[in-house]
Amino acid sequence: MMKKGAVSVAIIQQTCSEDQNENLEKAIRLIREAAEGGAKIICPQELFKGRYFPQTIDVKKYDWAEPVPGPTTELFQELAKELGVVLLVPVYEYAMDGVYFNTAAVIDADGTYLGKYRKNHIPEGPQYIEKYYFTPGDMGYPVFRTRFGKIAILICWDQWFPEASRIVALKGADIVFYPSAIGSEPDDPDLDTSEPWITAIRAHGICNNMFVAAVNRVGEEGEMSFYGCSFISNPWGEILAKAKTRDDEIIMAECYLDEIKKSRDVLQFHRDRRVDTYGEILKKVIE
Amino acid sequence: MMKKGAVSVAIIQQTCSEDQNENLEKAIRLIREAAEGGAKIICPQELFKGRYFPQTIDVKKYDWAEPVPGPTTELFQELAKELGVVLLVPVYEYAMDGVYFNTAAVIDADGTYLGKYRKNHIPEGPQYIEKYYFTPGDMGYPVFRTRFGKIAILICWDQWFPEASRIVALKGADIVFYPSAIGSEPDDPDLDTSEPWITAIRAHGICNNMFVAAVNRVGEEGEMSFYGCSFISNPWGEILAKAKTRDDEIIMAECYLDEIKKSRDVLQFHRDRRVDTYGEILKKVIE
Repeated sequence: MMKKGAVSVAIIQQTCSEDQNENLEKAIRLIREAAEGGAKIICPQELFKGRYFPQTIDVKKYDWAEPVPGPTTELFQELAKELGVVLLVPVYEYAMDGVYFNTAAVIDADGTYLGKYRKNHIPEGPQYIEKYYFTPGDMGYPVFRTRFGKIAILICWDQWFPEASRIVALKGADIVFYPSAIGSEPDDPDLDTSEPWITAIRAHGICNNMFVAAVNRVGEEGEMSFYGCSFISNPWGEILAKAKTRDDEIIMAECYLDEIKKSRDVLQFHRDRRVDTYGEILKKVIE
Repeated sequence: MMKKGAVSVAIIQQTCSEDQNENLEKAIRLIREAAEGGAKIICPQELFKGRYFPQTIDVKKYDWAEPVPGPTTELFQELAKELGVVLLVPVYEYAMDGVYFNTAAVIDADGTYLGKYRKNHIPEGPQYIEKYYFTPGDMGYPVFRTRFGKIAILICWDQWFPEASRIVALKGADIVFYPSAIGSEPDDPDLDTSEPWITAIRAHGICNNMFVAAVNRVGEEGEMSFYGCSFISNPWGEILAKAKTRDDEIIMAECYLDEIKKSRDVLQFHRDRRVDTYGEILKKVIE
């Protein structure tokens, strides 16, 4: 087995204004800063170019979708090549008239477009009206072999489903990124999901012995408040870095990828999985 | 839908001596105490009758196995009936010569034997030499409708596998019990798995919006030290009760079962599961 090295990972937590160019420019500025600080894989938050538009139903917002590859991924291809870093690009994807996805593209450190992931799990709740905007993903759970490690992306709501994290782990993902937009629950003002959110994602790292990096937006947008709390944790579930503010912030951690084999050789979950007993997991309910 | 009430749950964390009768008597004493305190479902730790014998390979230990139902479950049937409580009974099961399981039986509050679960995931590591002793479970993942709620049992190593917790949730388990025997890792003395252990189990509760109750042994046995940390958490992952000592202790919490529907109606994970995308989870590796 080839020995794996360390990789410096950065996630970009930011507030978003009404001005998409301003948001994009800020993301690029923070990405440049992260790269100068040594980051080799950099991931912005879900739909980082704009405000979280699924708060309301508005047919005009469909026009925010763009092809992938397309203008934003092309811009990030140049940026990745210039900086020599892997970039993840979460955008609203136009596939054809009437079919739009919540997508993230992966750009390798030489600027090559490696492919994309389309969010599979689409939420729907008061002010998270995503089923109106996003066709459920149709590409399964790809992993991407980048210059600096084998990575996967799962987008926001996907983060609550252990099945998704398991499948990318079985495909060899070393680091799973969870670009997110999660905050207050307008229908339940006392509910704060930040602690369960962190726990569930850390647990995906633990149960699969891999690194996880969750990046969430911050700030007030209309009636919603996004809580940030972006973090990176290791195969033991230890938090390596966590947002210190509820503001724009680069969260960066050195991930020693050989910890994956080390933890799996001590806690041999993958050896002992009882795949012969899991068939019922493919059902919605078992009556 | 029928409205669900509250149920008081107790888990029994204990040290074990060489004397099996002493351990059994202590468990019964603590169960009586928990029942007097109002507990309605009570669960001792994994293999609570004896010391953790899989530290070494010893053919004579096979003689510790007993039929299920058998002497211990019969004793607990009388006890359950007398106290009017549901009892879980984790024992080493003799099925036939050469086939022994790590099992837990469920006794209803009227003394009825409801069935058993046989541990599916069997670990094997230095001083956790369980593959020698325990045939992997052959009964899938049953749930049990007791007088005080629909429950499931997953035993120790099972607790690291989100698939197992998901399946019992899909079958309608309100509370999942994880009787355990986990402690120091002799091959890695610096490793403390207690924090990942708690996080992984809380996350099963979160991702499935159900109650979880993990009960672990305590004390020094040979070269091993068991860390206890037994706890009960709710569908939001909040810890309702946790062991305060590394000694014999009853951990008890009131579980408001209507929190399950409430949390599922706010966080609609089960509606949004993409069972059409999970097929690869039935593989050991995906190459």
